[in-house]
Amino acid sequence: MSNIKLVIEYDGANYCGWQRQVNGISIQQVIEEAITKLTNQKITIHGSGRTDAKVHAKGQVASFKLESSIPPKNIYKALNQVLPDDIKCLSSEEVSEDFHARFSAIGKHYQYIIVNRDVKSAINRNYIMNVRDNLDIEKMKQGATHFVGKHDFIGFMATNSSVKNTIRTIHKISVTSFEQQILIDVWGNGFLYNMVRIIVGTLIEVGKSTIKPREVQSIILQKKRKLAGKTAKASGLTLVEVFYK
Amino acid sequence: MSNIKLVIEYDGANYCGWQRQVNGISIQQVIEEAITKLTNQKITIHGSGRTDAKVHAKGQVASFKLESSIPPKNIYKALNQVLPDDIKCLSSEEVSEDFHARFSAIGKHYQYIIVNRDVKSAINRNYIMNVRDNLDIEKMKQGATHFVGKHDFIGFMATNSSVKNTIRTIHKISVTSFEQQILIDVWGNGFLYNMVRIIVGTLIEVGKSTIKPREVQSIILQKKRKLAGKTAKASGLTLVEVFYK
Repeated sequence: MSNIKLVIEYDGANYCGWQRQVNGISIQQVIEEAITKLTNQKITIHGSGRTDAKVHAKGQVASFKLESSIPPKNIYKALNQVLPDDIKCLSSEEVSEDFHARFSAIGKHYQYIIVNRDVKSAINRNYIMNVRDNLDIEKMKQGATHFVGKHDFIGFMATNSSVKNTIRTIHKISVTSFEQQILIDVWGNGFLYNMVRIIVGTLIEVGKSTIKPREVQSIILQKKRKLAGKTAKASGLTLVEVFYK
Repeated sequence: MSNIKLVIEYDGANYCGWQRQVNGISIQQVIEEAITKLTNQKITIHGSGRTDAKVHAKGQVASFKLESSIPPKNIYKALNQVLPDDIKCLSSEEVSEDFHARFSAIGKHYQYIIVNRDVKSAINRNYIMNVRDNLDIEKMKQGATHFVGKHDFIGFMATNSSVKNTIRTIHKISVTSFEQQILIDVWGNGFLYNMVRIIVGTLIEVGKSTIKPREVQSIILQKKRKLAGKTAKASGLTLVEVFYK
């Protein structure tokens, strides 16, 4: 048995998210079925984490044990032959027996794309969130700095989540803009359920001047979900990269 | 009657192109039907030019005569209420009686997006063309310079086109790259059928080193379609802007 690490890109628009669900087709299910088609084995793959319905990935990582004659480095090519257009594997390799896509992960990079304009976007509409109110980028940059560091992010977690340890470290956030597009890139050691989308929703309020940049700090300290901004739309979010030792 | 100029953004993936056709739904048809829905009038709109099936636009322009109580500057907002997600109007205004989106146009800007990598793109797949062979950007930049100027571009026109005057002026071409993405931007006074896509197909051959950069000049001069590169995939092309006096 080989332990295989797979790096995957997907367009989440037509899926119910990464994880298998009773209602709806998940990315996990499609990849597992592709592996079965290829190897005649029923395999469970472990993702680095769940991504929600409509969220995308440029570098999701999954691991699984496989007995196969296909050289590990070629598995991704074989899988791409049977995968649909909106899910493609970027690489595959054999890793040490104790590697686990989720438990071995030490960090992640997410990117969120806002298009700040009056009219809804026709082009790229599945990869962005449109915001009509004029956003002040400088304020958003100032507000973002307060997220960096080790904090209890319980106020930035979906209320239906039951995770016990809600302390996470954000290593870096950048807010950059080009024409009408605003990119929010977040690097951290891990993220709670909906955490990036709530951070983005909060920065949108900062950009709209309904929350002052320096108020972000007290919102984090007060640990109440209702003080933070709305959960930003799933479509704007992409899991860019998962980091391992 | 007011003469209205409309600026339109669309995702061409699900359409047979700009122009009305018997088989398939066109952008023109959808917009005309939206105007009818809004004003109860049967209107013919004139685009600045046709875009092919699957080609996109960030700034297509159309003009039409309309008798309506809606202020011209608000027509685009009203239209967006009835248009589908993949077609949106960016602005509308009343223009002088002799303005015609096609005949008044003095130039256009097209952009083509190539993603140069081994694996097909899942994300953005409808907005790009994937090229697997490694492309030499410097050679593409050198090759591109030869297109600039006034030339007979008959060798860069689809063979089924019957246009008589095949002389066009290209004002500028830029080839830029970022990570795996290569952008080819072309500005000119007008373009023959498939001309941008054949220019891109030729620059791809230059990037693959099957055509030398300086050979582009003689390919233009020899005026034979078969000497130029293949017609690049429609999905990578976007009409960015149409220029008027």
